Amino acid sequence: MKDKSKTCLTGIKPTGMPHLGNYLGAIKPAIEMANSEDFESSYFIADYHSLTTIYDPTKLNEYIYEVAAVWLAMGLDPNKSTLYKQSDIPEVMEMNWILSCFTSKGLMNRAHAYKAITQDNLENKRDADQNINMGIYSYPVLMSADILFLETEVVPVGADQLQHIEIARDIANAFNHHYGEVFTVPEALVRKDFAVIPGLDGRKMSKSYDNTIPLFLPEKKLKKLINKITTDSQPPETPKNPNDSLIFDLFKLFAKKQEITDFDEWYKKGIGWGEAKAELFKVINRELEGPREIYNDLMKNRHQIDEVLVQGRDKVRPKAQKFLNEVKLKVGVK
Amino acid sequence: MKDKSKTCLTGIKPTGMPHLGNYLGAIKPAIEMANSEDFESSYFIADYHSLTTIYDPTKLNEYIYEVAAVWLAMGLDPNKSTLYKQSDIPEVMEMNWILSCFTSKGLMNRAHAYKAITQDNLENKRDADQNINMGIYSYPVLMSADILFLETEVVPVGADQLQHIEIARDIANAFNHHYGEVFTVPEALVRKDFAVIPGLDGRKMSKSYDNTIPLFLPEKKLKKLINKITTDSQPPETPKNPNDSLIFDLFKLFAKKQEITDFDEWYKKGIGWGEAKAELFKVINRELEGPREIYNDLMKNRHQIDEVLVQGRDKVRPKAQKFLNEVKLKVGVK
Repeated sequence: MKDKSKTCLTGIKPTGMPHLGNYLGAIKPAIEMANSEDFESSYFIADYHSLTTIYDPTKLNEYIYEVAAVWLAMGLDPNKSTLYKQSDIPEVMEMNWILSCFTSKGLMNRAHAYKAITQDNLENKRDADQNINMGIYSYPVLMSADILFLETEVVPVGADQLQHIEIARDIANAFNHHYGEVFTVPEALVRKDFAVIPGLDGRKMSKSYDNTIPLFLPEKKLKKLINKITTDSQPPETPKNPNDSLIFDLFKLFAKKQEITDFDEWYKKGIGWGEAKAELFKVINRELEGPREIYNDLMKNRHQIDEVLVQGRDKVRPKAQKFLNEVKLKVGVK
Repeated sequence: MKDKSKTCLTGIKPTGMPHLGNYLGAIKPAIEMANSEDFESSYFIADYHSLTTIYDPTKLNEYIYEVAAVWLAMGLDPNKSTLYKQSDIPEVMEMNWILSCFTSKGLMNRAHAYKAITQDNLENKRDADQNINMGIYSYPVLMSADILFLETEVVPVGADQLQHIEIARDIANAFNHHYGEVFTVPEALVRKDFAVIPGLDGRKMSKSYDNTIPLFLPEKKLKKLINKITTDSQPPETPKNPNDSLIFDLFKLFAKKQEITDFDEWYKKGIGWGEAKAELFKVINRELEGPREIYNDLMKNRHQIDEVLVQGRDKVRPKAQKFLNEVKLKVGVK
């Protein structure tokens, strides 16, 4: 018989429509995990985290719905997993303060994201802390609260986020040192590094390079964007090297095995770039058209998203309240 | 007709039994303010602030009751003012996070209390941030949340705390700059500097000098402590200078005008130190014996304290919830 599945938590920061790189690198593997039976998965929309940088309420609110709709459209099953909104669980913020009393400031000084900003400031002859607000500086504590209040056992992360889990572990241990084994010390589950997803210009797909293909676009726009991929001026009949083609790289990420073999042969026989792009559009669109329809439908009927988030809140909040009460008793404020 | 009285907030950090210096310098004037009609006063027990340094739950819990009992015994009327416990209003912690997103880190770097600790660390060749936890570092943000969520107009402070109100004003203004006039920008009401209250050794009365007279002691202990005041070996009949006597200084703080005149004359005629100490005990004890009885009674019947705090919570929390909801709407997480 199977052991009880491990509790597992993923935070999703609403910062705008994800792109294909986000989808293949993070969303798809996370949803596969959610639908496996090895984990009891929870997902939360980290809206309070976004507030550290997004001061436009309409945008932030839109991003929250977008990101929820994306994950639901991509197959997150709210009956198998839990999807909730961070700001719906106010207990997290009390936990955040309690944990901050057990977080040495030095730990925050060493956080990679903070160090990167200060370094950039110093290189540009600005004050080290310029444009850094306390939300940005202390968000690893809030992230620890997110993880610890749910007694999470496993947190799937990219290698670049490993430090956050280390911080959550340090804080949990510091607290447990004073009050006994109150917090579950979480484990990081480092995602296998997905091959870098190339963007329209061949560099890593990233919003900062402005080379992304957004996950959900009307078909016409998707086609147009794919047609923007830069190609050389070889005529169609010239045999081409599939291993040196951005179109082929992207094709492989969405096509079936046999399709890849066939495409490879077509390249070697000679393929027109227009044809290649049309094939690429076909495989991407095939994977996205169903979810796109669901996404558009959800965005038009937001009460459906609200219902899922309320369902998630009602599942998580009683646990959060119970656990917070225990913690408050432990520290003596109750 | 009188204008609407201004809302006014005072935070009380539970850190153990106050001493006579705290009483005369802060508690007494605050209670006079509460009982005046110029202000609509609220008081809160800042238990979450104490958690930055007190990791002993039994102690912290005891301090919470002690401090509530002290203020009630000293005449704080919970029907005229509001007394509540910080940790009973979880909305404060959400407000704390929201505000932290509008608090520049530089503001915290310049906070006097933080700077004092780092300076001490550096002077002792330790890392600047040694033994500083994130609660200590960021507590001016929490203090701002305490003030701003209640739409406080006036905060009475000692001159040494003026900076905290400046910080709360800065944060309120930074937020209002983005979202319109959401927060009331609070004003500091700087308390007239009370003459320094001398301790048993003549230096300023302070726990760090171990020279305090705790506010509530059994009569015998109070008498014993007063008898510990150091005096010289002049015989009783020698005329003495009232202006160079610690006993006289303390006496003046508790005696009536006529009593001070009489005591002055006795000094000049010649007074025995034992007699002088007995007189001092009498005036201090006269002021404290009534409150002491109430205090002891409250500490034996803690449900009475609980009832007052619940009454305060039920008055404050609906306002807090309503205002937090408005703020959440403003920033876009609702």
